Amino acid sequence: MRTIRLAMAQINPTVGALQRNAEKILRFTERAERQGCDLVVFPELALTGYPPEDLLLKPRFIKDNIDCLLKLSRRIQGITAVIGFVDRQEEIYNAAAVVHRGSVAAVYHKMFLPNYGVFDEERYFQAGRTPLNFTLGDVTVGVGICEDIWYPEGPARVQALAGAEVIVNLNASPYYFGKVRLREEMLVTRAMDNDVIIAYNNAVGGQDELVFDGNGMVVDQEGRVVVRAKAFSEDLVTVDLDLEGVARTRLHDTRRRKEILEAEYGGVREVTLHPVRGKKKRPIARRPSVKTMDRLEEVWSALVLGTRDYVRKNGFKHCVIGLSGGVDSSLVAAVATEALGPKNITGVFMPSVHSSRESREDAEELARSLGIEFLTIPIDSVFDSYLNGLKAVFRDLPSDVTEENIQARIRGNILMAISNKFGHLVLTTGNKSEMSVGYATLYGDMAGGFAVIKDVPKMMVYELSSYVNARAGRPLIPERVLVKPPSAELRPDQTDQDTLPPYEVLDPILKAYVEEDRSLDEIVAMGYPKRLVKRVITMVDRSEYKRRQAPPGIKITPRAFGKDRRMPITNGYESR
Amino acid sequence: MRTIRLAMAQINPTVGALQRNAEKILRFTERAERQGCDLVVFPELALTGYPPEDLLLKPRFIKDNIDCLLKLSRRIQGITAVIGFVDRQEEIYNAAAVVHRGSVAAVYHKMFLPNYGVFDEERYFQAGRTPLNFTLGDVTVGVGICEDIWYPEGPARVQALAGAEVIVNLNASPYYFGKVRLREEMLVTRAMDNDVIIAYNNAVGGQDELVFDGNGMVVDQEGRVVVRAKAFSEDLVTVDLDLEGVARTRLHDTRRRKEILEAEYGGVREVTLHPVRGKKKRPIARRPSVKTMDRLEEVWSALVLGTRDYVRKNGFKHCVIGLSGGVDSSLVAAVATEALGPKNITGVFMPSVHSSRESREDAEELARSLGIEFLTIPIDSVFDSYLNGLKAVFRDLPSDVTEENIQARIRGNILMAISNKFGHLVLTTGNKSEMSVGYATLYGDMAGGFAVIKDVPKMMVYELSSYVNARAGRPLIPERVLVKPPSAELRPDQTDQDTLPPYEVLDPILKAYVEEDRSLDEIVAMGYPKRLVKRVITMVDRSEYKRRQAPPGIKITPRAFGKDRRMPITNGYESR
Repeated sequence: MRTIRLAMAQINPTVGALQRNAEKILRFTERAERQGCDLVVFPELALTGYPPEDLLLKPRFIKDNIDCLLKLSRRIQGITAVIGFVDRQEEIYNAAAVVHRGSVAAVYHKMFLPNYGVFDEERYFQAGRTPLNFTLGDVTVGVGICEDIWYPEGPARVQALAGAEVIVNLNASPYYFGKVRLREEMLVTRAMDNDVIIAYNNAVGGQDELVFDGNGMVVDQEGRVVVRAKAFSEDLVTVDLDLEGVARTRLHDTRRRKEILEAEYGGVREVTLHPVRGKKKRPIARRPSVKTMDRLEEVWSALVLGTRDYVRKNGFKHCVIGLSGGVDSSLVAAVATEALGPKNITGVFMPSVHSSRESREDAEELARSLGIEFLTIPIDSVFDSYLNGLKAVFRDLPSDVTEENIQARIRGNILMAISNKFGHLVLTTGNKSEMSVGYATLYGDMAGGFAVIKDVPKMMVYELSSYVNARAGRPLIPERVLVKPPSAELRPDQTDQDTLPPYEVLDPILKAYVEEDRSLDEIVAMGYPKRLVKRVITMVDRSEYKRRQAPPGIKITPRAFGKDRRMPITNGYESR
Repeated sequence: MRTIRLAMAQINPTVGALQRNAEKILRFTERAERQGCDLVVFPELALTGYPPEDLLLKPRFIKDNIDCLLKLSRRIQGITAVIGFVDRQEEIYNAAAVVHRGSVAAVYHKMFLPNYGVFDEERYFQAGRTPLNFTLGDVTVGVGICEDIWYPEGPARVQALAGAEVIVNLNASPYYFGKVRLREEMLVTRAMDNDVIIAYNNAVGGQDELVFDGNGMVVDQEGRVVVRAKAFSEDLVTVDLDLEGVARTRLHDTRRRKEILEAEYGGVREVTLHPVRGKKKRPIARRPSVKTMDRLEEVWSALVLGTRDYVRKNGFKHCVIGLSGGVDSSLVAAVATEALGPKNITGVFMPSVHSSRESREDAEELARSLGIEFLTIPIDSVFDSYLNGLKAVFRDLPSDVTEENIQARIRGNILMAISNKFGHLVLTTGNKSEMSVGYATLYGDMAGGFAVIKDVPKMMVYELSSYVNARAGRPLIPERVLVKPPSAELRPDQTDQDTLPPYEVLDPILKAYVEEDRSLDEIVAMGYPKRLVKRVITMVDRSEYKRRQAPPGIKITPRAFGKDRRMPITNGYESR
């Protein structure tokens, strides 16, 4: 039987850390070699990490990455490896090197460059023009990078018509919930359309506001998922691919014969490589199938990985979180504890006269159940000293949102002081619903290095909190936190619903406006009162200046704030 | 003599404010008509403002902009107008409408889309494929948009070969110092290369971090600047263009005859329009030539216009500024006073025990000379209350940068409280040198809505301050401020040079690293000690997280922080 033993190395590189990434690539290469693999595939831009952003405008960075690849290649002798890096030939390319017998045998340049959503590849790269197939012994393999596979008329089509029986596709595909299913459906269709095996290998790990979810998979020519890589963690998947199966399918496919006549595929570059070793090897034990995750487990895992990687890749160990006794800060504390361990988390409760007894009890109870450090620092006397200092300026003006913000900013200042003194990172606790309407205090509760649940709508915050408790088999987050009305506790008897519509109403309006760019009229047509929708939209538009100064947070929806949604602050448009 | 009377309407639109922009366009159209003009040209995307960013992803916004154009067109009967808007035909285009006798006679789609620096046009637009010439009576006019004119082989070449004697080029070209000269040199070359008159019309005004500088000009076929529009203010330039001159030049140009043989210009779309009115009109008085500005006047004007437009277009009237008695806050106060008038500025001096008598005197003196409101709010007792609140947590740990930051954040909180109470906008006062190395406190002196001098290096802050005084003919900024050593005054006897190299050394290193992407080695080769350069570069790299949360500020250099320089926060690259 004609087979090839393939390894998909689902690694977690760090943007910019060329040397460390190269070492990681080498370690995975050696593991694949020990398992008798013929070919090992790495993610897109595995060597530089993804996305390197404006590091790509530094000539020295490009040179260092190429030097690093060449040095790495010399150490890869016993296996063929496909490695994502930045190539340079007049212009720079998002590229994949086919490394064989210690040198770079061929280079593929990504042909389709994404420049939407969080992607800016047209800013940096020249698009490639030539698909690449390489033949390893009796097997022809096509190389593709990420976006390439999303086009029905992309390189995979001509690669397959020109003889590729396997397409290896290198990815750095950021997570949002729902994407895993979309990807799989696309890959199944693409594999069947082209009678080809597709090995889809993704990066994994957090990079600023993005999380790469892994979830690599091999789909065969009949659209069956042969093997899955893990979600949200590094993995090395090895599999024997049956090329005779591809040949059989092709002989039966009359459509393919017509397509070959029609297609122009003379443009495919073909490289022939002599396999490094003979084909005698023990069969790989069938990998136990990886369970696919449900939505809440997925989002939870994304938040945990995104937080862990942001903290660690930026050289921090310990995080500090303001605990209010509310559901947002409780969830963030639970995520951080899972990500970094309870010893590395400090919760700070900062009560004022407006803080309820329940809040204190709930915050303390949460800290106890998570096993994290708990500090209490009251803010009333600091607050009084501000009011005193401002008395001459404010005179007898009535109390308003100013005084609420002062309190929030005192808390921000205290958390930052603890951060500065002990080298901890402050995690902020605002959710997407708040970020959308600006129901948050800039430099107050928005102060911190990383905004864990910035892209999680409030209703999903509740769902995730219940999930956390169900998962733990005990109320890590006190049950009362999940049922009491949400409040900022910045004035007497305040609740969120003094200012905002109920979250059951607010969240769908926000999704329609922020994520889907629906107009006022369209949202009203969904069944919401015009005045309410208008008010919500206006709040969203007017808060752009706050979001611009917010810390980065983890993208989990199709459209997050940050690189994904680039709105002007100065904006005279009135949505109709 | 064959002539056409052209008006260049250098207007200041507001992004998104379709209705207001349309009204402004109509007013300028009417003015041009009253002056007997045949043709009036507006800036790129005049109807939507530039850049509309992700407003372009809202289908309703695109529709509203087209509706607005059609309504506007019906009101333009007595003159031909070229108006920038967003066209939609399957995809959307950065477009120019030729409006004639009350309707849209032709539409041009921008062919070259910039996607570098601050530009993201590939994110939104489809590129056009067809150059457009229209003939108005006996004159053929080519239409181009911004980037189109920067390519030697761009549409202007085939437009001219196909008969255009005038190219109108619609721009939204953001300012940085040095750009005005580059633009003029390019236009002179392009006009001579193509034996064509180029009417380069730019937008003017501030939009978030960008300032459009106007500086429109008409360059004739021999490379002479026929007329200039004003810098940094709206303008309507009218001029009679001599087409016989173009014809004469072309008859003498043998190179042109060869080029016509070689070029493929069959692709140019040609539209014939019947002129609205006869040619009998009084000659236009020759416009007095606009003086070109020197570098400091240019930068000063950009800062004033950028500040005024950010404040007013966002609905504010009054600004509040923390005055330290130092040069940065003094310059910002001077800019703001020029932009908004002294009645709309409040300066707040917030002394601590570390504040010198000189600082207080200088801050007060500045406020007096500018004629702005001056408040003093001491921070010591608030500071003590923080220390008291944190005592149990900090125990006996020595004082460090934590305590400095607490003070800076108290000041930030006080300014924001004044902002909240009175509806003022806080202007921050950090310069580019500080922003580069992170010599600033997040949520402290970085707290505010707009960062006026964020892109001005410290050495230029001094130059501009001297310029301000020279311009006023008296020391608006106290002379002592310009000579005393800069200090944050956050601990006893502190100066910036305890932490940073002298600004004479720091600024060129920063320019090389931040603006020019030079490597460590290259900067060392410029004559700086390796250890120092390494330290500076590390400071820059490690401060990315602060800059990400900084308010927007005015771009005045070729590479500003913000949309112009997109670096990852999580970044393992060590520049070599």
